[in-house]
Amino acid sequence: MDNFSFQTPTRYVFGRGVEERAGELVSSIGCRKVLIVSGGGSARRSGLLDRVEHSLREAGVGYVSLAGVRPNPTDDRVYEGIALCRAEGVDGILAVGGGSVIDTAKAIAGGVPYEGDFWDFWAGKAVMTRALPVGVVLTIPAAGSEGSGNSVITKLDGMHKISLRTDYALRPKFAIMNPELTFTLPPEQTAAGVADMMAHIMERYFTPTEGVEITDRVSEGVLRAIVEEAPKVMARPDDYDARANIMWSGTLAHNGICGCGRREDWASHGLEHVLSALFGVTHGAGLAVVFPAWMTYAAKTRPAKIAQFGRRVFGVANPDDSAAATEAIAALRRFYKSLGLPLTLGELGIDNPDYAAMTAMFHRDKGTPFGAYISLSPADTEAIYRLMA
Amino acid sequence: MDNFSFQTPTRYVFGRGVEERAGELVSSIGCRKVLIVSGGGSARRSGLLDRVEHSLREAGVGYVSLAGVRPNPTDDRVYEGIALCRAEGVDGILAVGGGSVIDTAKAIAGGVPYEGDFWDFWAGKAVMTRALPVGVVLTIPAAGSEGSGNSVITKLDGMHKISLRTDYALRPKFAIMNPELTFTLPPEQTAAGVADMMAHIMERYFTPTEGVEITDRVSEGVLRAIVEEAPKVMARPDDYDARANIMWSGTLAHNGICGCGRREDWASHGLEHVLSALFGVTHGAGLAVVFPAWMTYAAKTRPAKIAQFGRRVFGVANPDDSAAATEAIAALRRFYKSLGLPLTLGELGIDNPDYAAMTAMFHRDKGTPFGAYISLSPADTEAIYRLMA
Repeated sequence: MDNFSFQTPTRYVFGRGVEERAGELVSSIGCRKVLIVSGGGSARRSGLLDRVEHSLREAGVGYVSLAGVRPNPTDDRVYEGIALCRAEGVDGILAVGGGSVIDTAKAIAGGVPYEGDFWDFWAGKAVMTRALPVGVVLTIPAAGSEGSGNSVITKLDGMHKISLRTDYALRPKFAIMNPELTFTLPPEQTAAGVADMMAHIMERYFTPTEGVEITDRVSEGVLRAIVEEAPKVMARPDDYDARANIMWSGTLAHNGICGCGRREDWASHGLEHVLSALFGVTHGAGLAVVFPAWMTYAAKTRPAKIAQFGRRVFGVANPDDSAAATEAIAALRRFYKSLGLPLTLGELGIDNPDYAAMTAMFHRDKGTPFGAYISLSPADTEAIYRLMA
Repeated sequence: MDNFSFQTPTRYVFGRGVEERAGELVSSIGCRKVLIVSGGGSARRSGLLDRVEHSLREAGVGYVSLAGVRPNPTDDRVYEGIALCRAEGVDGILAVGGGSVIDTAKAIAGGVPYEGDFWDFWAGKAVMTRALPVGVVLTIPAAGSEGSGNSVITKLDGMHKISLRTDYALRPKFAIMNPELTFTLPPEQTAAGVADMMAHIMERYFTPTEGVEITDRVSEGVLRAIVEEAPKVMARPDDYDARANIMWSGTLAHNGICGCGRREDWASHGLEHVLSALFGVTHGAGLAVVFPAWMTYAAKTRPAKIAQFGRRVFGVANPDDSAAATEAIAALRRFYKSLGLPLTLGELGIDNPDYAAMTAMFHRDKGTPFGAYISLSPADTEAIYRLMA
C-alpha cells in the first residue's frame, strides 16, 4: 500500500425532500448571496429551481442566476459566471444540476478570487489554494463532482478538455441529494451515469500497487451494488431505493475512497475526453466504448487485476487469468448493452475516425507516455482506439 | 433507504513515517500549545512520543502531557486533563495512542470550553456544540475513534460506561496513521482490535432498514478485507501491507460510511460495556464473546440478514436462511478462535456471573426496550447473556 492523504469534508444531506434545506445549508457555510448555476432547463420546468429559490429567500439569502450550462462544459460560461459574481458581489456558488453544472460552478468559484485567467489552473500555470464556497443540489448521479475536488472544463480554443484535481479547494461544502429528483432522467442519461461512476472506480481499481485489499474490496462492493441496482432503475425509474443506491454509489465512486493507498490510472478518461471534445459524445456513453477496449489491450500484458475484477464483480469462475480477463470484459460489455449503452465508435455515431489525430490529441493533453496500470505510448493509444471500431 | 446526513471532515495522513508531520499538522489547525494525551508507556518506550514532541518543537508548538490513560478510560483522568488544559492555556489536544487515549482526549476537548460538569454531555443533560480541536497519532487499530465523533467514558461512581455520539464536535481534525507503529502490538491486542472493528461494522449491518445494498456491499467489503488480512497480521506482525489494510479497515469500520441510510443496532456494544465495567475485560475480547451470542438469539426470529452476512463474508452456501445463519455464526466463531480470541464468559475469566445484575445494568444504561434489528426486553437480554456461558 502506498502512503496517502485523504479528506472528504463535504457534508452530504441525503434523502426525500432535502432540497428544502438549501437555504439553511447555504447560510450554514456563511454565504449571503450566491450564484445559482444550472443547466438546460429541466430544473426550472420540474419546479426544483423554484423550490430552491424559495428556500434561499426564506433563509434571507440573495441570489443571481447563470442558466443554460451544457454537457461537456466550456470556458466561455466560466468567464461569464466570474464576471457576474464580481459585478453582483456574490460570496458563494450553488450548483443545481449534474456534473457539467457543478464543474462550471467550481471553475467560477476558483476564478472569482484569482486575478489572472482562471484557465491558468487547468493549464498547470497556477495552483488553486482558495475559492468561493460551493454547494450542490445534485440532479444527475454520474460525475461524482458533488464529492470530489475536481472540475473538468473544455477550452473552446483548441478543444482542450482538461480535468483539474484539487485536494481541498474545490470540494463542495455540502451536497443535497434527493433520489426522487432523478426519477425523470431519460434512460440514456441514467445509463451513461452508471457507466461514468463505474469508470471512476475502475480508473482507481486497475493499479500497479499491490497490497491494497481493503481498497479493492470497497471498490468491488460499490461496483457490485451498481451492477445489481442499475437494472432496477432502468426497469422502474421511480424505484426510490434503487435510485438512492445508484445516487450514493456515484458519490462513493469518485470521492477518493476507492483510490486510497494506490496509484490510479485515468487513461480511459483521457481517451474518452478526446471523443467528447471532437465528437460531442456524452461522457458516460463514451466511457462504455472506451473502457472495455482499454481493458482488452491491458489484458494482453497484465491480465491479473482484470481477472480479479471479473471474479469478484461479475462472478467469473475461470481460474486462468487471461481467460478470466476475457470473460470479465465480455460480462462488462453485456452489462453495458443491457442498459442500452453503445459498445463501438459506430454506435456512438463516429464513422471513419482519424485515429492518428485522436491519438495525437490524447498525448497532447496527457503527455507521453501516460497511464499507471499499463503505460501508453502513441502506438498503444492508437491500437486501443482501433479496438473501439 | 432512510434519509441521512454524513460528513467525515477528518484529514487522514496515512503511511510510513507520517508521525514526523505531527508538528506541521497541529500548526495547520491553528494550535499553539497542545495537551499530549498518552497511555501506559509503550509510546514513550518505543521512542514515538519523543519523535512527536520533537516534531512539535520544530514547528514551534508548545505542549504539556497527560500520560497513563488506561483501557476502559475513566472520568477521573478527564477531570485532570480539563484542569491541566485550563491552567496551562492549551488550545488543542493531541492524542497519541489507541481508542482509550483518543476518547479521553475528546472528553477533555469537550470539557475545557464548557462551564458545567463534562459528564453532562454523556448523561444527556447537555448537547456538545464546541470543543478544542483534537488531533490523533494512532497506535492501535481497533476503536475507530480516530475517525468518529464518539467518545466512550466510564464514570467511576456507579461504573456507568457511556458512549457519547456527536455528529461533528468531536471528530478529530487529523489522524496520523503509520502502520509500522502497530508492528509491536501484542497478538491478543491485535486480535481484540480486529473483533472491535468487525463489531463496529456489524452493529450497522444488522439493521431493520431495507434497500441499502450500497451500504451493505461496502460493509461486506470491509469485513472481507479484515477476514483476509487479520490472519496475515497474526502470522507475521511486521507485514506492512497487512497491517496497513487492518489499520485503514478499522477507520472505515467506524467513521460512519457503513451506516449511511439505515438504522443501527448497537445492542452488542451495550452488552459488552457491562462486561468491561463489571469485570474489566478488554472491549474487543468481550465483543468476540457477545456478538455470536447476540446473533444466535437474533437468528431465531430474524435470520435473513445473518444468513446474508454468512454468504457474502464467509462464503456460506446454504440456501436456507436459518441454516445459513447458524453456519455464519459458526464461521465467525471459528474465525475468532483462529485469532486466539475468547468465545465464552469462562474464557474471559468470568465464572458464575450474576445474569440478573448484568441485565439490570444493561437496561439501566440503555433503556428498555433496546435494539434495532431485534428489540431487547430484559428477558431477551438475560437469555443472550446466558448464551455466552
